[in-house]
Amino acid sequence: MKILVLNGPNLNLLGAREPQHYGVQTLADIEKMLTDEANVLGVEVGFFQSNIEGELVDAIQKAVGVYDGILLNAAAYTHTSVALRDALAAVKLPTVEVHLSNVLSREEFRHTSLIGAVCVGSISGFGADSYRLALHGLVNRLG
Amino acid sequence: MKILVLNGPNLNLLGAREPQHYGVQTLADIEKMLTDEANVLGVEVGFFQSNIEGELVDAIQKAVGVYDGILLNAAAYTHTSVALRDALAAVKLPTVEVHLSNVLSREEFRHTSLIGAVCVGSISGFGADSYRLALHGLVNRLG
Amino acid sequence: MKILVLNGPNLNLLGAREPQHYGVQTLADIEKMLTDEANVLGVEVGFFQSNIEGELVDAIQKAVGVYDGILLNAAAYTHTSVALRDALAAVKLPTVEVHLSNVLSREEFRHTSLIGAVCVGSISGFGADSYRLALHGLVNRLG
Amino acid sequence: MKILVLNGPNLNLLGAREPQHYGVQTLADIEKMLTDEANVLGVEVGFFQSNIEGELVDAIQKAVGVYDGILLNAAAYTHTSVALRDALAAVKLPTVEVHLSNVLSREEFRHTSLIGAVCVGSISGFGADSYRLALHGLVNRLG
Amino acid sequence: MKILVLNGPNLNLLGAREPQHYGVQTLADIEKMLTDEANVLGVEVGFFQSNIEGELVDAIQKAVGVYDGILLNAAAYTHTSVALRDALAAVKLPTVEVHLSNVLSREEFRHTSLIGAVCVGSISGFGADSYRLALHGLVNRLG
Amino acid sequence: MKILVLNGPNLNLLGAREPQHYGVQTLADIEKMLTDEANVLGVEVGFFQSNIEGELVDAIQKAVGVYDGILLNAAAYTHTSVALRDALAAVKLPTVEVHLSNVLSREEFRHTSLIGAVCVGSISGFGADSYRLALHGLVNRLG
Amino acid sequence: MKILVLNGPNLNLLGAREPQHYGVQTLADIEKMLTDEANVLGVEVGFFQSNIEGELVDAIQKAVGVYDGILLNAAAYTHTSVALRDALAAVKLPTVEVHLSNVLSREEFRHTSLIGAVCVGSISGFGADSYRLALHGLVNRLG
Amino acid sequence: MKILVLNGPNLNLLGAREPQHYGVQTLADIEKMLTDEANVLGVEVGFFQSNIEGELVDAIQKAVGVYDGILLNAAAYTHTSVALRDALAAVKLPTVEVHLSNVLSREEFRHTSLIGAVCVGSISGFGADSYRLALHGLVNRLG
Amino acid sequence: MKILVLNGPNLNLLGAREPQHYGVQTLADIEKMLTDEANVLGVEVGFFQSNIEGELVDAIQKAVGVYDGILLNAAAYTHTSVALRDALAAVKLPTVEVHLSNVLSREEFRHTSLIGAVCVGSISGFGADSYRLALHGLVNRLG
Amino acid sequence: MKILVLNGPNLNLLGAREPQHYGVQTLADIEKMLTDEANVLGVEVGFFQSNIEGELVDAIQKAVGVYDGILLNAAAYTHTSVALRDALAAVKLPTVEVHLSNVLSREEFRHTSLIGAVCVGSISGFGADSYRLALHGLVNRLG
Amino acid sequence: MKILVLNGPNLNLLGAREPQHYGVQTLADIEKMLTDEANVLGVEVGFFQSNIEGELVDAIQKAVGVYDGILLNAAAYTHTSVALRDALAAVKLPTVEVHLSNVLSREEFRHTSLIGAVCVGSISGFGADSYRLALHGLVNRLG
Amino acid sequence: MKILVLNGPNLNLLGAREPQHYGVQTLADIEKMLTDEANVLGVEVGFFQSNIEGELVDAIQKAVGVYDGILLNAAAYTHTSVALRDALAAVKLPTVEVHLSNVLSREEFRHTSLIGAVCVGSISGFGADSYRLALHGLVNRLG
Repeated sequence: MKILVLNGPNLNLLGAREPQHYGVQTLADIEKMLTDEANVLGVEVGFFQSNIEGELVDAIQKAVGVYDGILLNAAAYTHTSVALRDALAAVKLPTVEVHLSNVLSREEFRHTSLIGAVCVGSISGFGADSYRLALHGLVNRLG
Repeated sequence: MKILVLNGPNLNLLGAREPQHYGVQTLADIEKMLTDEANVLGVEVGFFQSNIEGELVDAIQKAVGVYDGILLNAAAYTHTSVALRDALAAVKLPTVEVHLSNVLSREEFRHTSLIGAVCVGSISGFGADSYRLALHGLVNRLG
Repeated sequence: MKILVLNGPNLNLLGAREPQHYGVQTLADIEKMLTDEANVLGVEVGFFQSNIEGELVDAIQKAVGVYDGILLNAAAYTHTSVALRDALAAVKLPTVEVHLSNVLSREEFRHTSLIGAVCVGSISGFGADSYRLALHGLVNRLG
Repeated sequence: MKILVLNGPNLNLLGAREPQHYGVQTLADIEKMLTDEANVLGVEVGFFQSNIEGELVDAIQKAVGVYDGILLNAAAYTHTSVALRDALAAVKLPTVEVHLSNVLSREEFRHTSLIGAVCVGSISGFGADSYRLALHGLVNRLG
Repeated sequence: MKILVLNGPNLNLLGAREPQHYGVQTLADIEKMLTDEANVLGVEVGFFQSNIEGELVDAIQKAVGVYDGILLNAAAYTHTSVALRDALAAVKLPTVEVHLSNVLSREEFRHTSLIGAVCVGSISGFGADSYRLALHGLVNRLG
Repeated sequence: MKILVLNGPNLNLLGAREPQHYGVQTLADIEKMLTDEANVLGVEVGFFQSNIEGELVDAIQKAVGVYDGILLNAAAYTHTSVALRDALAAVKLPTVEVHLSNVLSREEFRHTSLIGAVCVGSISGFGADSYRLALHGLVNRLG
Repeated sequence: MKILVLNGPNLNLLGAREPQHYGVQTLADIEKMLTDEANVLGVEVGFFQSNIEGELVDAIQKAVGVYDGILLNAAAYTHTSVALRDALAAVKLPTVEVHLSNVLSREEFRHTSLIGAVCVGSISGFGADSYRLALHGLVNRLG
Repeated sequence: MKILVLNGPNLNLLGAREPQHYGVQTLADIEKMLTDEANVLGVEVGFFQSNIEGELVDAIQKAVGVYDGILLNAAAYTHTSVALRDALAAVKLPTVEVHLSNVLSREEFRHTSLIGAVCVGSISGFGADSYRLALHGLVNRLG
Repeated sequence: MKILVLNGPNLNLLGAREPQHYGVQTLADIEKMLTDEANVLGVEVGFFQSNIEGELVDAIQKAVGVYDGILLNAAAYTHTSVALRDALAAVKLPTVEVHLSNVLSREEFRHTSLIGAVCVGSISGFGADSYRLALHGLVNRLG
Repeated sequence: MKILVLNGPNLNLLGAREPQHYGVQTLADIEKMLTDEANVLGVEVGFFQSNIEGELVDAIQKAVGVYDGILLNAAAYTHTSVALRDALAAVKLPTVEVHLSNVLSREEFRHTSLIGAVCVGSISGFGADSYRLALHGLVNRLG
Repeated sequence: MKILVLNGPNLNLLGAREPQHYGVQTLADIEKMLTDEANVLGVEVGFFQSNIEGELVDAIQKAVGVYDGILLNAAAYTHTSVALRDALAAVKLPTVEVHLSNVLSREEFRHTSLIGAVCVGSISGFGADSYRLALHGLVNRLG
Repeated sequence: MKILVLNGPNLNLLGAREPQHYGVQTLADIEKMLTDEANVLGVEVGFFQSNIEGELVDAIQKAVGVYDGILLNAAAYTHTSVALRDALAAVKLPTVEVHLSNVLSREEFRHTSLIGAVCVGSISGFGADSYRLALHGLVNRLG
């Protein structure tokens, strides 16, 4: 079993960016933690981050035949991207929506998710642990 | 460490009710699973379910001094209850919002959560596993 | 065949309350009339009234296996209760929405029904006769 | 006592049209059933159907002095016609709004009724039996 | 100079219908008064009333080459008819919107006019005198 | 009989300001024309113009006992002034809303009138002739 | 194969009406062009135009058993007619929505189509050529 | 004269809960203060608090014949309860809406009151003193 | 301690204006009553009324250094004036919003207060007694 | 004459992706078909597809001087991209909006097109044939 | 070249009022700075401030023939005044909208400008420097 | 001091594109002008333009440690990009929003800025001079 961990715009800044919302771990820290966790679970993980909406669409498309599921933190594109939604609907890979912060306690425009409806589930508000829980949830579901 | 697992209206019907949305496990099954999981984690769990909004408010109030955190599946009251929101804001116990189904892929009125803004995080769409993941997430956070 | 007649908040005040909207018959009068009518139709009727949303949810849940259908005048909860909607959707008992007054000629917030979509039909505006017509309609449908 | 049964656009297709919403009876079947029921009740019924909004307005106007009340299934015009509303308000004949299907469980634009506010009551969701119940309700009210 | 006085749905009931909104004069009374007034002004007037939106559209189309301007009381269709708006925009005859009652002091849905934007002016609230004033205003403008 | 002609903000610029909307006559021209027309009708007219909302409120208040009715072109304040509405409702002098241009063919925010609901009628789109028609309409009504 | 070409309100004015939106060809020109094109394609075409919403509903109903598909330019009724939508849904004849002008570059109220959801496709903005393209598209689809 | 002081959800936590919004006095402190104040005014006061919407409805109903008026702090139910509104409208006891905090300076969903329209007045923002002022206001009005 | 009692548009008409909403006391009566009440409380009161929004802004600005708090009945400007809100926010004098009538039971546009968010509290619906209660509340708060 | 066929996000998946909405032909199939059709029409076609909004903007800009018109299936970006709209408005190349599916019968957020207003026309719902019809329509218009 | 610097409500309080939004400079300081800057640029500046909307309208009207352009900080009236918009549209003097604070990072009702559409440009967020930049921008444009 | 001048989609077309909105200068002209102006001010400027949202995000991220502030003309992405907003909030470099045209006098969807709230100020409507003024404003602020 192989899981793609896909991160959207500005998540490459993790650790530097607004720690009150996103915590102090870098994206590399999170990827390291997930690799370790995946080993424990006996699954593989791959990683991709981009600030470009269309490259995230590309990554979702290319995941077909390579990955069994996706952890997707689409960040800002969560609220604006029909293209990501369409990509997920097209490839039909089970996907979990992940957010570091609790989006419901932030600005109103972050309360809407265009991609949630085509995901299997959503986890938000646990910082880096959101990814770890999502990995467990997705592996259980696929298992 | 002691966690209250609080379930709202109609969740006592689990297993019987709309399995395409909520799965086939009963609430007793889920409580049993959570008790086992809590043992593994070295924490305690307590349970309460009610169909009455105000009794859920009561339960949240009484959790102060007894519990260290709450897993709350407010079900229908998620979308309509300012009273539950106020109770959570008042007691200040770290609370995780839990949903069995992926609410974002259901009716529009289920896309709004009045209580999410006062929770620390949210997990939805994993069926009974949503509770287990939430327990892990909350225990990690409190730990 | 057995039908539950379920009445929501303030309907225990019937006869006393705003006769221009609700008429002069008491709830006991209506229940007496429905019992007589049920005898004629060769069916049984049971009654429950509560001002508490969750007790109405309880009553709907307990109707399973006892009743074949429900006449529900949810009164104020018609416009605000997702919990009642979920209960009806869960138990799958054929339910008719009943109102004494013509809600469409009253305040705007009474024009929305959260429960109508999960009922089989709706009758409003005939005063106490709304119940009698609903009983006929439901019995015909179940017959 | 004489009641006009007025049917709006596309109801002449009944039996052929979308049976999952409207049932298998033709409009002639329903009119026959209502005539029989009227005989039992000792009242007279007249019928008119048109696909043209203004002809329905004409029919309402001409009902004055001939009929004592109206059963109106305005179908699509329910949601768009101020002209029908004005006609009903002008002639002041007691009118019952009738629908075959439960409009609240269909598209959002069918949840609004422009004519309901000037009717005495509304019955929907019982198929052809909606008319029969409405006839009883109106006759009782006028009696 | 020749002016068409065009009246929409339910205005044939004038005198009988809701005198608190529309006064006690019949449509024939108003047409008689306008004929007299037209004589004084040295212009001709023609009249047409219909309850059918499309017949009003027909009348506007046929007015080209026969009439120099239109007084239009579209009544209920004021608020719902794009077809009348398109007809007026197509024929380009100067048109005055007329209302007997002051629509702004009535229901909210009467505060919107779909046809006002393609008229040269609007007069409302003076009862039958609204037509007379509109005739003067239109004749002055055309003169 | 004495009529107050009350003009709101920027109407002192008439003749200079945007002639495509407001015509080429000055406010003095219009007042002269209305004085002449009033002589013909055997009534008196008084005039006041201010750019200050509260001075218009003052003028309405002081009209009590001096004037029998008001022609009010509130201009921009039509769309924003609850104070003018309250003043008219308080003094209860019959008032006609006047506009030079056809406000419905201009910007959307001009389609709303806060004062129309407390006026007896409204005339718009005839340029200076709107005032003359309004004077006739108001005098007839008061006569 | 036989196709009904159905035109709504004011399309009988084509050629005369607002050529910047609708071009200079008359409806007869378009019908002639479509007849020629149909001959080339080896199909038959029939034509009907009405300004009356209900007559268009009638025409759709009568098309059953006579025609294999419909080209419908509902013009103004596109934006306001639930009755046409219901007629199309009832008869289930494949229908293409046609517009001469590009409705998305005109007034906001023209951006909404009540009938589009029950059509198989939509073509707009090509003037008379919209019909020709729609004929090709519908014939291909039915072929 | 006898006044019922009715408190809604979470007000039993006063003193403990969010002192920046609600102050440091407990509900018992406030009830003591009101009893003293009532003695001075020569009236009696009774008290009831519940977190359950329907129990508050019950309390309002039972106040008839026992109390002459109500001070109601419905807290969270202010914004969501049609049932409380209906109860107040039914019993017709003069009621004053009370809030400790100034709700207009808090979240947007607290700016709406479903019950205000059926109260005689409203006092908010004075902390515990809101109750005392409301008691004076209600006693004066009833006196 | 010195309190400014500031009254907005049309309140100079009190006693004459719509007694069903505002009572029969004149503004002078209310000011006299407040002066007496202030004497009892051992504080001073000053008064200002204007129909001009900007003069009310001026009065608020000039209150700094002279007054310790403000009772403000902004009347119509309550719903439309950002300028008054900004003035209150700027001078930071504790201010109580006062209304004679219960604004929540009147027109919808009166349910919004632009100034409430920058006041310490609000009292409405007690007629002239609203001012007296507000004076007590403000004096207690400042004391 | 040379036409650019521009395809947006996820259209590279055609044939694989949701065939109930998009059909079974691949993008290569469609491009082959369009090349053949272009040969018949005596015009040239070029192709570009990207999942990246800005690359589509680039392609539109570079079309100037190379192409005479554009067929644009912007897919998901239809509903969210002001940048594509601005690019089309800037280059002023006649553009036809193309959609495979009938967007009006899908989710509500697909009913809005940000780019339609700057296109010359729109064709949707014919599957791959939408492109062929659009090619004909555009070539006719340019010819 | 002569420029009018026009300041709206509460700007006379600058320096005293909410320094976190508006800085510590007084209006006199700003006017002094602008006079100096105007000298450097070889232009003249005049100043006017009022809290009264209508006096600002007056000032704009009187600027014709005296000034070549306007710097307008309408403060609160930015969001509510159609009268100021109409005055600017009438006099046609090039006007720059100025704000000290960045209005887009404050309350939602400050995000709307009624006057921006009739200005040539807008500068906000630079404190007193907003005026200086606006002076440069306007002089450049006029030069 | 070093300032990044960042330009979004379609600004590479400046000079060619819609000169009535954007003027006749090319982007190279503007960059040349800004370089000269920067020399005068004794600061450095760097430039980047992209049509790709994510590349603009990249550019903002890379500006940290290199630049002291940003002039950002996000063009179309102003109204749709949460990603740019998040990038600005993350890097915390003082940023000025720049627009060539006065966006408030254009289409409604251009009246909303998602990025304005995280900028220090905004300048629009001065054509190329908007950049020059913004440079001055930002340098003054940073100085």
